[in-house]
Amino acid sequence: MSDIAMIEAAALRLKGHARRTPLLSSPFLDEIAGRRVFVKAEALQHTGSFKFRGGWAAVSALPEDIRKRGVVAFSSGNHAQGVALAAREHGVPAVIVMPADTPTSKLANTRALGAEVRTFDRNSTDERDAIAAEMVKGRGMTMIKPFDNIQVIAGQGTTGLEIAEQAAEAGVETADVLVCCGGGGLTSGIALALEAKASGLRARPVEPAEFDDVTRSLISGQIEENTRRSGSLCDAIITPKPGDITFPIMKRLCGPGIVVTERDCLRAMALAFSRLKIVLEPGGAAALAAALFQPEAVTGPDVIVVATGGNVDAPLFARCWPNSETRHD
Amino acid sequence: MSDIAMIEAAALRLKGHARRTPLLSSPFLDEIAGRRVFVKAEALQHTGSFKFRGGWAAVSALPEDIRKRGVVAFSSGNHAQGVALAAREHGVPAVIVMPADTPTSKLANTRALGAEVRTFDRNSTDERDAIAAEMVKGRGMTMIKPFDNIQVIAGQGTTGLEIAEQAAEAGVETADVLVCCGGGGLTSGIALALEAKASGLRARPVEPAEFDDVTRSLISGQIEENTRRSGSLCDAIITPKPGDITFPIMKRLCGPGIVVTERDCLRAMALAFSRLKIVLEPGGAAALAAALFQPEAVTGPDVIVVATGGNVDAPLFARCWPNSETRHD
Repeated sequence: MSDIAMIEAAALRLKGHARRTPLLSSPFLDEIAGRRVFVKAEALQHTGSFKFRGGWAAVSALPEDIRKRGVVAFSSGNHAQGVALAAREHGVPAVIVMPADTPTSKLANTRALGAEVRTFDRNSTDERDAIAAEMVKGRGMTMIKPFDNIQVIAGQGTTGLEIAEQAAEAGVETADVLVCCGGGGLTSGIALALEAKASGLRARPVEPAEFDDVTRSLISGQIEENTRRSGSLCDAIITPKPGDITFPIMKRLCGPGIVVTERDCLRAMALAFSRLKIVLEPGGAAALAAALFQPEAVTGPDVIVVATGGNVDAPLFARCWPNSETRHD
Repeated sequence: MSDIAMIEAAALRLKGHARRTPLLSSPFLDEIAGRRVFVKAEALQHTGSFKFRGGWAAVSALPEDIRKRGVVAFSSGNHAQGVALAAREHGVPAVIVMPADTPTSKLANTRALGAEVRTFDRNSTDERDAIAAEMVKGRGMTMIKPFDNIQVIAGQGTTGLEIAEQAAEAGVETADVLVCCGGGGLTSGIALALEAKASGLRARPVEPAEFDDVTRSLISGQIEENTRRSGSLCDAIITPKPGDITFPIMKRLCGPGIVVTERDCLRAMALAFSRLKIVLEPGGAAALAAALFQPEAVTGPDVIVVATGGNVDAPLFARCWPNSETRHD
């Protein structure tokens, strides 16, 4: 099956389950960016991020007798919730393997979506791998990787199908499509969809400073790793390196990466709050930050931005406002 | 022209201009409410509230030679921005008459949408009326009232057409549709649309405590006024009394009103933030507050909520979180 056929097959399986998220805009954002800005609001997707698409696509692609034994995923973040809800809606068990120091609210949310949560010492990948082996070999579960999985990429690619349609409705034929990028599952999926459906649109990864592995890999032409492994506000998109499946797709189809500061991600969150009325997490605001604050890095009269997620707690969210504004006691 | 024909005509004029806002949901909200909760996210409408629909419908309904002279509106809030943007997109002038003590950000936003802002002393309706007379008689502008105007009601009613379609897609045939209610333009417009298109759905107004004029009017069967005129966090929906056009429609078609506390509106804002990733202002969260915290006042296994607006500044928004969570300095 061709790439686009896999994405279209995923779209059929997601129909009525994933949400067709809106393409938002505001004249105030256009003025800041100096061009029209269209924001694909995936924070409004089920579980608060695009990850539900890939989770659903992967779970629904399993043969019935395999699927019923359940799925397992490593994640402390959005992939955990996406897989958990997709499994629950298919009526099959999910085990999510999370570091023991994961914030309580994320553990609780994942459990509330019906998943069994198993924790491991963050410094012991042995312990993590032992749990995974127990699930896969012992219980016959299927591991759902967060990005280097062709069904996950196909699911994320359904975002690109919608962008192609919505851009056409808005009269946009040529534009950069800026995508907040971790391991590249969403970026490569969107790139494949656009290649087939909207050849004037070009996907471009956006990453936080010091976690710009994809941007550097696209420059050098081979997979480059980050030196740092943690310590960014943009925790949703700080994977160590692009995937073995996702990188060749991005290399073939994507424009150059853009690197943004944490501070600009916070500023973009504040503008998404005031001008679009949506909640973004720092990593989910990276592409909007690039569009607004690095207009010279973007080409053309219009830009499309994928706002990938909104799973952020109040104390971190409030950091997007100057202190003077949020003091209220 | 029948009521539904006027609403459908407004929908045709709004097509490609107003946004078809999504119907959102979350299993976490369903659990709190004890039934499925569907949230029509009108905070995502252009200008951050449903008011753009009515503004566009009214401006677009004017004959060309009348329209080109421009429109005038009294408003310190969402109606101001809705009319201002609708006028600008039609290429005609708008004058918005606002109290001189309107917060700077609202004055600036309205001007940024291209309107001429004229201010008056809040205590002098004479001054306000003199400005309006100057615009209408002197400059030939048309006054756009915020709710007691049949084209405005038709425009707001397009929300009801979308709810009817989206409820059917979600498999909801019978439900209360809770609407944050000021003068009743949106509530009556939705009620008319549902009467024609989804007879199992019933509009019900939701109001803040002490500003429950519509609820009391529906009980007594005649127009009742509020004693207080100001002093609610829900400033978007504290009109003094239902309209002469809107009230008979609500009396004929709506279920009983529901009255909510400011505190519950703030709690609903916090849950819309964390579970739906949308920004609501207190008045825009009233219907969600009713669904979540007064489940005994609602009938049936499903409820639909109209989240009417999200125009709220950071300091007020942050009041939806307990202080302990928002301290970050």
